[in-house]
Amino acid sequence: MTRPLIRIEDIDDPRIAAYRNIRERDLVGREGRFIAEGRVVLNVLFSTSRFSAESVFLRDNRVAGLGELITHIPEDVPVYVADGSVMDGIAGFEMHRGIVAIGRKPATDGAGLLDSLPREALVVALSGIANHDNMGSIFRNAASFGAAAVLLTEDCCDPLYRKAIRVSVGAALKVPFARFPDADTLAASLIERDFSLLALSPRGALDIADVSRADRHALLLGSEGHGLSEEVMERLPTARIDMAADFDSLNVAAASAIALHRLWRG
Amino acid sequence: MTRPLIRIEDIDDPRIAAYRNIRERDLVGREGRFIAEGRVVLNVLFSTSRFSAESVFLRDNRVAGLGELITHIPEDVPVYVADGSVMDGIAGFEMHRGIVAIGRKPATDGAGLLDSLPREALVVALSGIANHDNMGSIFRNAASFGAAAVLLTEDCCDPLYRKAIRVSVGAALKVPFARFPDADTLAASLIERDFSLLALSPRGALDIADVSRADRHALLLGSEGHGLSEEVMERLPTARIDMAADFDSLNVAAASAIALHRLWRG
Repeated sequence: MTRPLIRIEDIDDPRIAAYRNIRERDLVGREGRFIAEGRVVLNVLFSTSRFSAESVFLRDNRVAGLGELITHIPEDVPVYVADGSVMDGIAGFEMHRGIVAIGRKPATDGAGLLDSLPREALVVALSGIANHDNMGSIFRNAASFGAAAVLLTEDCCDPLYRKAIRVSVGAALKVPFARFPDADTLAASLIERDFSLLALSPRGALDIADVSRADRHALLLGSEGHGLSEEVMERLPTARIDMAADFDSLNVAAASAIALHRLWRG
Repeated sequence: MTRPLIRIEDIDDPRIAAYRNIRERDLVGREGRFIAEGRVVLNVLFSTSRFSAESVFLRDNRVAGLGELITHIPEDVPVYVADGSVMDGIAGFEMHRGIVAIGRKPATDGAGLLDSLPREALVVALSGIANHDNMGSIFRNAASFGAAAVLLTEDCCDPLYRKAIRVSVGAALKVPFARFPDADTLAASLIERDFSLLALSPRGALDIADVSRADRHALLLGSEGHGLSEEVMERLPTARIDMAADFDSLNVAAASAIALHRLWRG
């Protein structure tokens, strides 16, 4: 059986309206939808039950190279194809990858996600992470070290922003996440469920190399600029990553990689 | 004494020709010069003897906030100032940071750099790293964990590319680096000088957590796409970073952070 493909010839075709001027529309949000790009990311999108897709849009010269991916697209999801110039005209820039989909954001329930976690779990809690590169990288690291969830305060940026998904290599679609109003609520929700919290900070009390992993452990990371608030730091166990005295400036995503590697149980 | 500032009123002023259309000129190279942006990076530039600067260019509303930096600029380096619209007109985009300098690339001698290293040293060796974000992040991690040098094969991208310096938060100007024709020459040059080499790869034989640090240790990292060649892998001790089986895709910069943290002697 061959998958039917819907040919788009006109850049004003209303069926592909969601793909129009992709870059600019990222900035204003997309009402519960997100853009997934590239073969690796689409493979994740179609292998998880947390997300559904609205449509797929392919550059025609990419169809032959899709391999198994095409068989994983549910039958009720339309697959549009266009030649390069039509696709670029719609997207508003040169879409080299030529493989893109519109996904629907799921409704997330923080308490529900926490209640669904297994008895042994490593989770990542983020407060005030505002940079999409860092967000994507942290998700990638979380997936690499088997984190069961990422928990975000409201002031974190969106893990389903186009660039964050791309940098995460699909991990933003793989690791379940949910939002909490603020770091206090988030910390309280974790403690209630027997998680040991560990706040990472250059001013942390313990060396991360000396931390023993608990069955349920939550690694708490603060914003790139200001780190975690004094209030949070005072109430929680804290750890630091020791480094050279004359250059104390590890990026938050690099810090997450180091700490998750230390906390991971292989 | 007040530092004399040279006011630029005309976007065609030949004295600031080096700052014209900064973004586009990045792509074609700048004949032995590089662009350093932002206060943190300029602080590094003017605190190291490896580099000299040709000029500094400031947005006028930034001058008051420069603090000590202005006193570190050598007297023979002209400091230009312009208002926002003139500066943006010259640079070809909105230069929010408003603090930029033209530096001169030093002549690098790989053997000379290796010969200058102390008896105890951790160095980073890179083969085929082509992405400026990764290059900048690896330098930042190298500086964080006190690496004495970064050694690059010819096919690595330029650590002094504008974006790489910015991502490195100045570490690309702080950690000395030099190029070698290829990975074999690089490895031989290190072995000759009693360095223990460790090639990092998902297929590595040792768990990085079990590696003992040698007095002279070199961490060898391969390209984002293809990693290290089979030939290199066969001849050198190799280590891997264990991770979750269903998502084996750690970014090379994140991998460098984890491995350097393991090899660093605090």
